[in-house]
Amino acid sequence: MNGRPTLAVVGATGGVGAVMLQILSQHADVWGEIRLLASPRAAGRKLAVRGEETEVVALSESALAGVDVALFLVPDAVSAQWAPIAVSQGAVVVDASAAFRMDPDVPLVVPELNPHAARLRPRGIVASPGCATMPMIVAVGSLHAEFGVRELVVSSYQAVSAAGQDGISALRRQMSAVAGTELGTSPGDVRRAVGDITGPFGGPLALNVVPWAGSLMADGWSSEEMAIREETRKVLDLPDLKIAVTCVHVPVITVHSLAVHARFEGPVTVDRAHEILATSPGVVLFDNPAAGDFPTPADVVGTDPTWVGRVRRSLDDERALELFVCGDNLRKGAALNCAQIAEAVAGEFAGA
Amino acid sequence: MNGRPTLAVVGATGGVGAVMLQILSQHADVWGEIRLLASPRAAGRKLAVRGEETEVVALSESALAGVDVALFLVPDAVSAQWAPIAVSQGAVVVDASAAFRMDPDVPLVVPELNPHAARLRPRGIVASPGCATMPMIVAVGSLHAEFGVRELVVSSYQAVSAAGQDGISALRRQMSAVAGTELGTSPGDVRRAVGDITGPFGGPLALNVVPWAGSLMADGWSSEEMAIREETRKVLDLPDLKIAVTCVHVPVITVHSLAVHARFEGPVTVDRAHEILATSPGVVLFDNPAAGDFPTPADVVGTDPTWVGRVRRSLDDERALELFVCGDNLRKGAALNCAQIAEAVAGEFAGA
Repeated sequence: MNGRPTLAVVGATGGVGAVMLQILSQHADVWGEIRLLASPRAAGRKLAVRGEETEVVALSESALAGVDVALFLVPDAVSAQWAPIAVSQGAVVVDASAAFRMDPDVPLVVPELNPHAARLRPRGIVASPGCATMPMIVAVGSLHAEFGVRELVVSSYQAVSAAGQDGISALRRQMSAVAGTELGTSPGDVRRAVGDITGPFGGPLALNVVPWAGSLMADGWSSEEMAIREETRKVLDLPDLKIAVTCVHVPVITVHSLAVHARFEGPVTVDRAHEILATSPGVVLFDNPAAGDFPTPADVVGTDPTWVGRVRRSLDDERALELFVCGDNLRKGAALNCAQIAEAVAGEFAGA
Repeated sequence: MNGRPTLAVVGATGGVGAVMLQILSQHADVWGEIRLLASPRAAGRKLAVRGEETEVVALSESALAGVDVALFLVPDAVSAQWAPIAVSQGAVVVDASAAFRMDPDVPLVVPELNPHAARLRPRGIVASPGCATMPMIVAVGSLHAEFGVRELVVSSYQAVSAAGQDGISALRRQMSAVAGTELGTSPGDVRRAVGDITGPFGGPLALNVVPWAGSLMADGWSSEEMAIREETRKVLDLPDLKIAVTCVHVPVITVHSLAVHARFEGPVTVDRAHEILATSPGVVLFDNPAAGDFPTPADVVGTDPTWVGRVRRSLDDERALELFVCGDNLRKGAALNCAQIAEAVAGEFAGA
């Protein structure tokens, strides 16, 4: 191949797409042509990428012709339909959706942890883990490389922007509905105040938390809880890892947080865990409670790394650590991880 | 003793005191005289209890004379100073504060779990567990009676009213400061918006969560995490119980929630756990995700029981259950549990 590869961004007009265009502008020398694709409804809009106004084109077979790498930042059903078409047109697809994550012929890749996996892609597709899995797996994966993880117990504090503009809008409107009131003190008052501003979370989120994410699976599990379990096992290549997850939505716009209890093969120390985390790519260790240093969504939003704090060794198990991790669900949790995978694939072209 | 015992409510003018007066009015036939005590600053105010306007009297040795049972709903330091004085005046003290919880000569009582413990009180004081411990221990304790608990991993979602009016006011003012803005999308914007409305939580709580509660203890643990561990061991009389806790504040006014991973001695089933929880005193089982039934603070606030939902058996450990529990930190988490203990003590007087 001559010159730099051609990139298509499918779903350029969505929330993750907007973050992707920022990231592509910061890594301006990787790609030749960058083609912005979206639904016919959004075609014709102009978006800035690498400082140039670029017209959005409707997704079609011909629009994918000549593309080397296609980033899919669209709902599951759109990826399921269009990713194979992109592959048939000669592209390598990097997919942010859940459509292919558990397909045994599609690698699930976090470049800091299993970059080699992206090279083996029988279907021509590489998948990126879900945004709730990401902060936990980046932190735990870095410790796993030395300590060998055996069991995880995970509780999430999930932000609303993972549900797109509908989620953000619902939370903002609910917060307006409860603003300046004495709500939150008697049963049902928050529900009455938010009225029909129900949102996609299974309950109101203003002045509330909701222990649910996704759809109902067998035995009372939510789809998000099962996804975190399965994706973690696949990325770490530990098909028998013990893992129990409870997913909870909280009134935060962006950044998923997770409290993690991680048990390893043998004894661990906080000092060594700190050393590992402080030197792991993509991780910021922010762990000095005496100075008020622990990660919170307000500090982490808009940043690339996974932030880790509150590292403690379990008082009753010298093999276990407690962690609190935060990661931006739109950046590393979606756009950034896909961009990293795509750049690794672009490197293959350069080497060819 | 002739007639019904005399009760003193020490700290009647606080937030927990207000809930206590409601509860006393609902259980109007237990007590003879009800004396309302508070700091000199609050003396002279009139509060309604059992439908009667009652004047608040300044806490003093003489104000405690003739009291049979004294409910202490005051900060730790006030309890530490005044509870022994009340005992010296002949009262049994039921203390909501942390001052005596871990004193080996003070029983720590949840009437649904260890009512017998309240009768052995060498110092004349009975303590009530902290509000963050309560929902978890009521749920786990009911399961422990049959299954035998061996290990707990707990993550909290804690409300601000446990920090009193300062906490509530800080959250409301922070929410006003971020209302109607596009905040929550770039680093530091929430911190800038809330400015000096810092509140007592170690970070802003509007559109945020903060993984901290209390003061810094050894090895990075927070005092609230240690308290949940020690109180749970004491109430369940399991001094070697394995328990790891991560405490997180969330933007909720009232009701603490906890995600609990509980491992028992042998295999458990969700069906049997449901039967136990559905018939345990003080517990509401609310667990039908297909119908959208799981507890959230908005539904639980203002109610007496501990609500339990999201009951699942761990997929990799037939001995472990996942639970999500919610409880009103001002009611069962403070005032109600103390009232229940006080009524049990009143029953001793009746039987004497």
